[in-house]
Amino acid sequence: MDSCMFDSYPSRCGNTAQIFPRTDPVVYSPEDEWFKGDGPLTEKEIRFFDKNGFLQLEALISDDEVKMLASEADKLRNDPLLLSREETILERSSREVRSIFDAHHFSTGFNTLLRDPRITNVVSYLLADKLYLHQARLNYKPGFQGKEFYWHSDFETWHVEDGMPQMRAISVSISITDNYTCNGPVMVIPGSHRRFLSCTGLTPEENYKSSLREQRYGVPDEDSIRSMVDANGIAEIAGKAGSVLFFDSNLLHGSASNITPYARHNLFFVYNAITNQLREPYCLQDPRPEYIAHRKNIELVG
Amino acid sequence: MDSCMFDSYPSRCGNTAQIFPRTDPVVYSPEDEWFKGDGPLTEKEIRFFDKNGFLQLEALISDDEVKMLASEADKLRNDPLLLSREETILERSSREVRSIFDAHHFSTGFNTLLRDPRITNVVSYLLADKLYLHQARLNYKPGFQGKEFYWHSDFETWHVEDGMPQMRAISVSISITDNYTCNGPVMVIPGSHRRFLSCTGLTPEENYKSSLREQRYGVPDEDSIRSMVDANGIAEIAGKAGSVLFFDSNLLHGSASNITPYARHNLFFVYNAITNQLREPYCLQDPRPEYIAHRKNIELVG
Repeated sequence: MDSCMFDSYPSRCGNTAQIFPRTDPVVYSPEDEWFKGDGPLTEKEIRFFDKNGFLQLEALISDDEVKMLASEADKLRNDPLLLSREETILERSSREVRSIFDAHHFSTGFNTLLRDPRITNVVSYLLADKLYLHQARLNYKPGFQGKEFYWHSDFETWHVEDGMPQMRAISVSISITDNYTCNGPVMVIPGSHRRFLSCTGLTPEENYKSSLREQRYGVPDEDSIRSMVDANGIAEIAGKAGSVLFFDSNLLHGSASNITPYARHNLFFVYNAITNQLREPYCLQDPRPEYIAHRKNIELVG
Repeated sequence: MDSCMFDSYPSRCGNTAQIFPRTDPVVYSPEDEWFKGDGPLTEKEIRFFDKNGFLQLEALISDDEVKMLASEADKLRNDPLLLSREETILERSSREVRSIFDAHHFSTGFNTLLRDPRITNVVSYLLADKLYLHQARLNYKPGFQGKEFYWHSDFETWHVEDGMPQMRAISVSISITDNYTCNGPVMVIPGSHRRFLSCTGLTPEENYKSSLREQRYGVPDEDSIRSMVDANGIAEIAGKAGSVLFFDSNLLHGSASNITPYARHNLFFVYNAITNQLREPYCLQDPRPEYIAHRKNIELVG
């Protein structure tokens, strides 16, 4: 597998599990300017993101906006036309909607939010580049039946299956319902973005058709996860609806199941640096569809 | 179904879901003596249990004892002789041990603990009766792969499948690993012990053979659970190893999955009042085996 030999972040190359150091910066804006405070973040916030790989900003979105977004999300979930589209992913064991990709194409509210400077200014400061949309999705985690997401690094998949060359992308999760520790909130392993966990196995063809329901390839091994947690612990991201979580593309995260009546829905936007555009996938297979990983129809968003 | 007609707590009678009031006391010791403080609990603790249906006592078991119990639990899980016994329940989708019933028969440490006055004095004060062992089990919730337990009232099953007449039993969960909000701790709905949620469906024959892996009958409906949570919220029971949770037989509880590396094991003893011994099961089927619900070989334990 030649593509693995010259890659700083080889994964699913038929090798054993390995841990590689990150060779890319986390914050791309120069450190000697962080103190200035003329950007959208304080020096303390920038340093927190640099060290931990994530940052949550509470109440970034107002209650009225949240109300509008939640009502849009409900509308889309019950739209029979959307149910038959490939952008809509159903749960593995039910007809419940799990995710809608490119949700901003179906909602002006989401489309506006995608370009909202409260969000894009933070991301473009951290990446120090123009941004384009890599992926947008609306995730539903219903009450009572919400399924878990096992630990993973998004970058691992975007690198192997989408051909994203460097760690220069940031995910933004906008809560449109309250997050408690009890309803399966996002859990992250602080600091894990500074290591790359190379996963075993090879990527099957058209893996995305099952991986979006339950991930089986690109899953880190238990020993590596344990070593990360031993070093850094686990942070549960609780917060009111309207809070926004920014996290590094390579941060290990996951979430437990949700048996509470409290649904947990969120909007998820991935911003990539324009200089970090996708190449051929490192697994040497066909690229995933455009609605999962944009490569042709690039939308500049900040 | 005659057995349902004259029952204060009818369930799985082919009816629709219904909510009945509790007709039994919660604390059986007379209220005008609670203030005395000559029992094992303070008045405040007794009132908390009465109102909420549970009480956690931190550090009831010392670190040295926890160490011994955890090592016993590890030994039993890896004992090939136990693997083939009916008391040992495996996970539905793996060969991992999920529970060992009557674990005190296989470990002197557990047997001593079952009769420990730090535990039995609390229970016999609350039930105001002599106690016998209804059920004892060792529950394993491994890290990474720990499965969820959906909301349920233990009493519902003990009543329908075991013939336990009244709500006069208390469950005791002894943590032998630390419980965090992130590793699938027990969640309870405070106050839910004061209502009985009658469940739909009928009990299949030999239901216990699958229900101990994943419960499908005796599961409350979502609307009833939501109404309980709306009124009372959810309490997550976190606490160090060695903490002990006492809870009413009819308290709604459950737990989410555990993807963290932190295992969550506990010992679970159910003490029943001697005057509340089992009758014929209310579902009119054969009783469950002795190791799941003792009715012949009664062990007095306090």
